[in-house]
Amino acid sequence: MSEPVWQRGDLLGVAELSRAEILHLLDTAESFVEVAARPIKKVPTLRGKTVINLFFEPSTRTSSSFEIAEKRLSADNINFSTSSSSLSKGETLLDTARNLEAMAPDLVVIRHAHPRVPHALAERLASGVINAGDGAHEHPTQALLDAFTIRRRKGRVEGLKVAIVGDIAHSRVVRSNVLCLTKLGADVTVAGPRPMMPEEPESLGARVVYSLDEAIEGADVVMMLRVQLERQARAAFPSEREYFEFFGLTAERLHRANDGAIVMHPGPINRGIEIASDVADGPWSVILEQVANGVAVRMAVLYLLAGTKSGEDGATP
Amino acid sequence: MSEPVWQRGDLLGVAELSRAEILHLLDTAESFVEVAARPIKKVPTLRGKTVINLFFEPSTRTSSSFEIAEKRLSADNINFSTSSSSLSKGETLLDTARNLEAMAPDLVVIRHAHPRVPHALAERLASGVINAGDGAHEHPTQALLDAFTIRRRKGRVEGLKVAIVGDIAHSRVVRSNVLCLTKLGADVTVAGPRPMMPEEPESLGARVVYSLDEAIEGADVVMMLRVQLERQARAAFPSEREYFEFFGLTAERLHRANDGAIVMHPGPINRGIEIASDVADGPWSVILEQVANGVAVRMAVLYLLAGTKSGEDGATP
Amino acid sequence: MSEPVWQRGDLLGVAELSRAEILHLLDTAESFVEVAARPIKKVPTLRGKTVINLFFEPSTRTSSSFEIAEKRLSADNINFSTSSSSLSKGETLLDTARNLEAMAPDLVVIRHAHPRVPHALAERLASGVINAGDGAHEHPTQALLDAFTIRRRKGRVEGLKVAIVGDIAHSRVVRSNVLCLTKLGADVTVAGPRPMMPEEPESLGARVVYSLDEAIEGADVVMMLRVQLERQARAAFPSEREYFEFFGLTAERLHRANDGAIVMHPGPINRGIEIASDVADGPWSVILEQVANGVAVRMAVLYLLAGTKSGEDGATP
Repeated sequence: MSEPVWQRGDLLGVAELSRAEILHLLDTAESFVEVAARPIKKVPTLRGKTVINLFFEPSTRTSSSFEIAEKRLSADNINFSTSSSSLSKGETLLDTARNLEAMAPDLVVIRHAHPRVPHALAERLASGVINAGDGAHEHPTQALLDAFTIRRRKGRVEGLKVAIVGDIAHSRVVRSNVLCLTKLGADVTVAGPRPMMPEEPESLGARVVYSLDEAIEGADVVMMLRVQLERQARAAFPSEREYFEFFGLTAERLHRANDGAIVMHPGPINRGIEIASDVADGPWSVILEQVANGVAVRMAVLYLLAGTKSGEDGATP
Repeated sequence: MSEPVWQRGDLLGVAELSRAEILHLLDTAESFVEVAARPIKKVPTLRGKTVINLFFEPSTRTSSSFEIAEKRLSADNINFSTSSSSLSKGETLLDTARNLEAMAPDLVVIRHAHPRVPHALAERLASGVINAGDGAHEHPTQALLDAFTIRRRKGRVEGLKVAIVGDIAHSRVVRSNVLCLTKLGADVTVAGPRPMMPEEPESLGARVVYSLDEAIEGADVVMMLRVQLERQARAAFPSEREYFEFFGLTAERLHRANDGAIVMHPGPINRGIEIASDVADGPWSVILEQVANGVAVRMAVLYLLAGTKSGEDGATP
Repeated sequence: MSEPVWQRGDLLGVAELSRAEILHLLDTAESFVEVAARPIKKVPTLRGKTVINLFFEPSTRTSSSFEIAEKRLSADNINFSTSSSSLSKGETLLDTARNLEAMAPDLVVIRHAHPRVPHALAERLASGVINAGDGAHEHPTQALLDAFTIRRRKGRVEGLKVAIVGDIAHSRVVRSNVLCLTKLGADVTVAGPRPMMPEEPESLGARVVYSLDEAIEGADVVMMLRVQLERQARAAFPSEREYFEFFGLTAERLHRANDGAIVMHPGPINRGIEIASDVADGPWSVILEQVANGVAVRMAVLYLLAGTKSGEDGATP
């Protein structure tokens, strides 16, 4: 018999995942989609498992998505945010994590401003670690839910043309998305104004252009990124209005994309800055489907990782 | 056969409720009172339902009352407060709400500083919406628990004389209480110093007086309101002491009320400002009963609304 | 038949506990240790019980330990912290507590900066009260988990030499630990620089010395305390480095202790200030075992107190 496809105890990034693992995860998520439509939206899968949500940066959507996923799997969860943590008392991050781990959680979900913090924790902790965003490095569950949403809408990811547009350099989601979509056989283009591009944009592994129109020409999927005006937009453009003029997605511009193209956004959206309101709310938009699918994908991740850990002897201290 | 009395999917205000609906809700709450007295204070009624508590203003008592009510009904709940929300990132309230809704909650409990925010959300969301206070507009669960407390203590609401005294203009609870008590047949008087009265106090639908003594003369129920000294009292009186002298409820003053009159307060109380300590702690006081009844009334609201929603096809997205 | 050993409804301090009660509690905790090692880390013991966690001071480790203990016992829990409480609105602590209690919790876990606040609440509330730290007065669950950890590692507490070293005056844990270990027959020495000693150190009931080396000479257990540099160390020493030189525990110094001595710390640790990193992480260290045992000991406390309360008639309002 062949080895089971999923053997990981951590989900740190899309970089480590094979195409087969990604597909297995998406297939698993399919089985959790219908749970949200049931009158009783709960399965006993993770009953008696403890999940710690350790958010060192605020996040409405990711933390609530994980929380709901955990509760629908019947796990017990505990939430930490920076403000309530001992970090203010000078304890190291690793000591905080080890202390939490000594309480025998099965899984730790972590968001942190610095790249590779989840990786560093995973090396030292027996509990499974899920990266819920480590700076602009990886945000694997977002990339997985995006791929899942594309596959559900378009029937496949392979061979699709995907444009990712906006603040490429600082986005939490670009790197994981390019990796994930490329592994699944999509043809990915990233676009943004030069001051919002990373130093070596080619290293992302996608085609690089500097015009919205060029990026979405013939695209099947247009993924708009949130502009953080307080930071980068000001360097690139004198005003939000000018940003919108050059890089805002309008219904008119969207006609350059293929028939049936879908519009995505990781949220929260800035209406009238990177996306026109009628596009965000229009028939092309799958933005709220992304949110709904996020719960199913995170249920799948929690399920697969907890299954791996509980299969080990003495996996938790 | 007649229609069922309760068909609403949202609880936005007392204004919309008929007398029959209010009575049905109070009768339903009666059946939840004894749950708090059981060794196992939990019923499986809302197992597998998701309730999101979305508090844009802090509140110990209302949010904890809802949380306990949800847990005793076996619902899964998720709490959001402003500080942890995306609103600081410039997302609109409606986008935040839609995003939360995409995660398929059954009910959303919302408190917001601005009137009619819950109504605006309810129009756009498929989930049931419960108004947990929208500025000084409505706070229907408070009014319902007050009516419930009066009915339990006095055996009826109809025909009772109720005095509501204090900062009428800015209180979160006056409007809903006047509406609710009037619909149930009580004779309501509101009283307060002129600077704490709304511009057209008669529009509340109650008798208006400007003296505490006049208001409580012959009253069966005296409901004292919290004075927010940081705001309005200063405009009306030079000091807390002067406020207490004119509008503070003392045991002596309470003798103007009817025999067996009860004293209510939505809390948190300011001892020695709007109410003397011996009155707050005395035999007339039903202040802690209000709190206890609040859990039962909120269980009834959650139960009735969830039942309505779960009876619909595709009620949740 | 003899009376049952455990009849208390509150756990306020070690001062009130008899040796027999402490031993009964530690024995009960033994039965909860293995729950954390199960695939399903949950027992139905407190199903339908409500526990309110009322933390007026931040605490990662104690609050999370209680939360996990409560969830593993299947209790429903509600968390309050100062920031979300009504105290900012001028309500008294007792009124806040009474209001929470009116919602019929079975147990209230409280941490407060001021000594004896839990005792004051316990006198006035029908719910069971657990002291989770009242300033520098008592922190009974910490002392119990420390005694539990010592007994598990050394097979006994009686006759052991225990050194407690550091900021004796301001530590949250010293008083409860000296009381607990002394009642169990240990020989306790406290040590620290003079500015970190209380005014009458002898009143603690332990031997008092002013040198680390003297304290750990022949010790079976070395318990290091967190130094709060922002406060006291500055008064005692010009720098952290100097503190470490005189009162920091190093591997070399530890050789003065008995063979097989264990090193404890209530956390969070300051590496390189009161304890060298290689000691904190070395084979002597039971610091993470303390954390793990904390969950089991708190499960035992919750279990014993809830059992007492639920056996009463009308214990909750």
